[in-house]
Amino acid sequence: MKKGIAASKGYAIGKVFIQEHEEIVISDVKINDIQAEKELLQRALASSKEQLEKIKAKAVESMGEEKAEVFEAHITLLDDPEFTGAMELEIENNSVNAMKAVDGVTNTFVMIFESMEDAYMRERAADIKDVSKRIIANIAGKVDSFEITEENTIVVAHDLTPSDTAQLDRSKVVAFLTNIGGRTSHSAIMARTLEIPAVVGLKDITTSVKNGDFVIVDGIEGTVIVNPAEAVVEEYKAKREKFVAEQEELKKLISVKTVTKSGKRVEVCGNIGKPEDVHQVLANGGDGVGLFRTEFLYMDRDSAPTEEEQFESYKYVLEKMEGKQVVIRTLDIGGDKTLPYLPLPEEMNPFLGYRAIRLCLDKKELFKVQLRALLRASIYGNLCVMFPMISGLEEFVQAKEVVDECKAELKAEGKEYSETTQWGIMVEIPAAAVYADELAKHVDFFSIGTNDLIQYTLAADRMSEKVSYLYNPMHPAVLRLIKMTIDGAHKHGKWVGMCGEMAGDEAAIPTLVEYGLDEFSMSASSILNAKKIIIEQE
Amino acid sequence: MKKGIAASKGYAIGKVFIQEHEEIVISDVKINDIQAEKELLQRALASSKEQLEKIKAKAVESMGEEKAEVFEAHITLLDDPEFTGAMELEIENNSVNAMKAVDGVTNTFVMIFESMEDAYMRERAADIKDVSKRIIANIAGKVDSFEITEENTIVVAHDLTPSDTAQLDRSKVVAFLTNIGGRTSHSAIMARTLEIPAVVGLKDITTSVKNGDFVIVDGIEGTVIVNPAEAVVEEYKAKREKFVAEQEELKKLISVKTVTKSGKRVEVCGNIGKPEDVHQVLANGGDGVGLFRTEFLYMDRDSAPTEEEQFESYKYVLEKMEGKQVVIRTLDIGGDKTLPYLPLPEEMNPFLGYRAIRLCLDKKELFKVQLRALLRASIYGNLCVMFPMISGLEEFVQAKEVVDECKAELKAEGKEYSETTQWGIMVEIPAAAVYADELAKHVDFFSIGTNDLIQYTLAADRMSEKVSYLYNPMHPAVLRLIKMTIDGAHKHGKWVGMCGEMAGDEAAIPTLVEYGLDEFSMSASSILNAKKIIIEQE
Repeated sequence: MKKGIAASKGYAIGKVFIQEHEEIVISDVKINDIQAEKELLQRALASSKEQLEKIKAKAVESMGEEKAEVFEAHITLLDDPEFTGAMELEIENNSVNAMKAVDGVTNTFVMIFESMEDAYMRERAADIKDVSKRIIANIAGKVDSFEITEENTIVVAHDLTPSDTAQLDRSKVVAFLTNIGGRTSHSAIMARTLEIPAVVGLKDITTSVKNGDFVIVDGIEGTVIVNPAEAVVEEYKAKREKFVAEQEELKKLISVKTVTKSGKRVEVCGNIGKPEDVHQVLANGGDGVGLFRTEFLYMDRDSAPTEEEQFESYKYVLEKMEGKQVVIRTLDIGGDKTLPYLPLPEEMNPFLGYRAIRLCLDKKELFKVQLRALLRASIYGNLCVMFPMISGLEEFVQAKEVVDECKAELKAEGKEYSETTQWGIMVEIPAAAVYADELAKHVDFFSIGTNDLIQYTLAADRMSEKVSYLYNPMHPAVLRLIKMTIDGAHKHGKWVGMCGEMAGDEAAIPTLVEYGLDEFSMSASSILNAKKIIIEQE
Repeated sequence: MKKGIAASKGYAIGKVFIQEHEEIVISDVKINDIQAEKELLQRALASSKEQLEKIKAKAVESMGEEKAEVFEAHITLLDDPEFTGAMELEIENNSVNAMKAVDGVTNTFVMIFESMEDAYMRERAADIKDVSKRIIANIAGKVDSFEITEENTIVVAHDLTPSDTAQLDRSKVVAFLTNIGGRTSHSAIMARTLEIPAVVGLKDITTSVKNGDFVIVDGIEGTVIVNPAEAVVEEYKAKREKFVAEQEELKKLISVKTVTKSGKRVEVCGNIGKPEDVHQVLANGGDGVGLFRTEFLYMDRDSAPTEEEQFESYKYVLEKMEGKQVVIRTLDIGGDKTLPYLPLPEEMNPFLGYRAIRLCLDKKELFKVQLRALLRASIYGNLCVMFPMISGLEEFVQAKEVVDECKAELKAEGKEYSETTQWGIMVEIPAAAVYADELAKHVDFFSIGTNDLIQYTLAADRMSEKVSYLYNPMHPAVLRLIKMTIDGAHKHGKWVGMCGEMAGDEAAIPTLVEYGLDEFSMSASSILNAKKIIIEQE
């Protein structure tokens, strides 16, 4: 039995198909004919674009419009002068060959994205690599294409690029296995969307199985059994049936209100990054949006989004949620998450630095654009706004003063906004948790951001390999801070949500229900399971 | 009136003497005769050494053996092959001129030291710059020397190097003022040792006063009054008299036990970095050593100190303290404080990374050398050992297991150790404070490390210019955590000390006494004033 990382739930039994990309060696050879080399690059870019258009069309069919958007992003990348222009310059200025130019520019871009803390941003490096691979393959004239003909095929690969995953034929492929990757890698996310089991990070699966091997994939335990005995196959067939039945059961919870045995109503919501993500939340029976990370509106652009652009995004989410609560977090940028149009100081410890509300209060004009857009959108639904990285009352008061300034401006301009919008804070700095009972007098609600709260409380960067073992959501001190936050809020009649990963953690949910947490917000795919667990609590 | 940073207490009234170093321009000119250039360098090194020997002798006279040690360090630097050897190599390999070679190597060394978090280490950059300036001046044949002939002189300079400060004639110089520097810069520390008032960080004092100007220096408020009216002079003369009298009063507290009005006995101790620092603690009436930062034993060397070397250092301190309590902190290295012989991983947020006890538990052999030395020294006095950066019980238990292993070894080797040594932890991670009541069951004592505790609790790196405004020892959440720590310890009959800067902060002491803090540890020069304030509390 081989053990990897469980990336997408479910069981599959089938035959191995090893998907190998032909190795392309990138030479160092300098070129003489710069013009010819630039043309070679342009042809490869054009072919890549053509291929991606086809893949996108296929993806729309198999996964829906939203998930296929990643390919639109790939196509855009091919048109990005910063990306492809840099390749041309490499050829022109340094006489490097086209492949080497693509490779060099890619490495620079990948390095920038991989050094970012946010898993979402780090994964963008995978997109860039994927596109780059395709361009290079086109230059070399070696574009792979796989035709899977047998049903119950289990695809095995070193890694699957987003475009590989999108091309998987769901009527034939029942699971996939890869050597590398993690739970947040693109292929893992796509597997969950396609609802096919997947185990990633298996290290050497491509060399430890061969084409035609019969394997069982356990996407819950993250294990693979190669050429199992008949009895084991029967056992897993039973597990698979049970799992499918349970999934059907879970789907019945979509429209069920989440109430504990003792009668407490709990909201189970979804976290979103882009406006379109609301559809997944609704499809999974979310009671609302518990966290809209607005920084994604600010990324991948040359200038900050205008008030109008933001207004449209917020309005879209509020309208789609049809009166369900939507919690929007103001810009949480800075530290390691940077924007090309917003120069930030170099800091030794960006996690303890200039970011989020600290930056927004400092750059008031930037902040006001967002607040005005939020206020204007507030009339289209049930809006809650929260400020990230609040360490004390002063910051909340200052932020609210900027809100009042925006309200006065809007009033003078004759623009509408709702007076029932709730204003809250993220509790993600230990000081806020320790001081929650006082802060609760002033805010409308709290949302506990466990990812940061745990890091600061234990002084352990979970991205640092050497200390990530200390990152423990169930550390007694972390639990105490969560309880202090909830008790502090309830004392003053305020509600408390949680939007960190812990909110969707099966092991943590019973304790959080016991503490009286009012709202759980998590990735859309975890909502139904969380509902099920919560309903079973006292 | 000009406002700067109060660096050394007291009042002075006198005439300005502007101390300007001649500007030396470092040229880029490449040289032909490598041998001649190397000889030029060698001669400059030899002259520098000769000058420093003289300065050292003078410093021993004016400031005592210990403070003069900085010049021994300067002399050692001149003999350090890593430093001067690199200069020779620069000349040899790159044909740069001697001045440029000195400048280049210096910049590299300075960069390394300035990037360190520890104020103490950052200040070492000043030493290196000081020595480098001297070598360059000797190469240029432009060594400055100042002869101050008038009494009541106030020296004004852009910055004062350690050697400038050491050469100040106390019978004539009554204060100094500089454009740059902070409370922890070398010149500030030396001013406190010399007991002359100083105001630093005045930005443009060298251009806003001229030689012969009559000025008042207020080393308490950090202000300078230029050419004051007669009435103001009289006012400050009175202040000066009062201050001198108070200082005399304070000295009477040296041998007085610190007891609050309600009869609570409080220990007021000193923080030390080097074994010799105990003399300052004793001279200022310290009740013990509340923090011995052992990392200084590990620095400035090519290999870790041996058990024997460490044993001698610990024994020295314990013996000199004659039975008074000595709290020694085990190695707090890692993150930004690095050692040449201990390669560490690159981390994005070193403050939240691999350091202190995390590193020691991982590198058990390194840790055991220190623990064996501590155990062996324990029979020479009243020893308490504490582990830094403890986030939970597990780490303390593991550390104690290593201690037991060392004890067993020593026993087998027939070596003695004391069974009455106390074993405690630094409370500097929020989790430890929140969980103090449970941890207190297992440890002998706590020592609150406020510098880190405040940083983590507020998620604000106090070294980051953009967020240092958030670093606030009196933040209500910080005060609550301190109270939780003290209450947690007392519940189980354990004592609590504090060894961060807050312990010596006049504004914080009354609150800390009210909370029941048992031991205050601070820089030796703050002890008497702290004693005075504590005695005045209920």
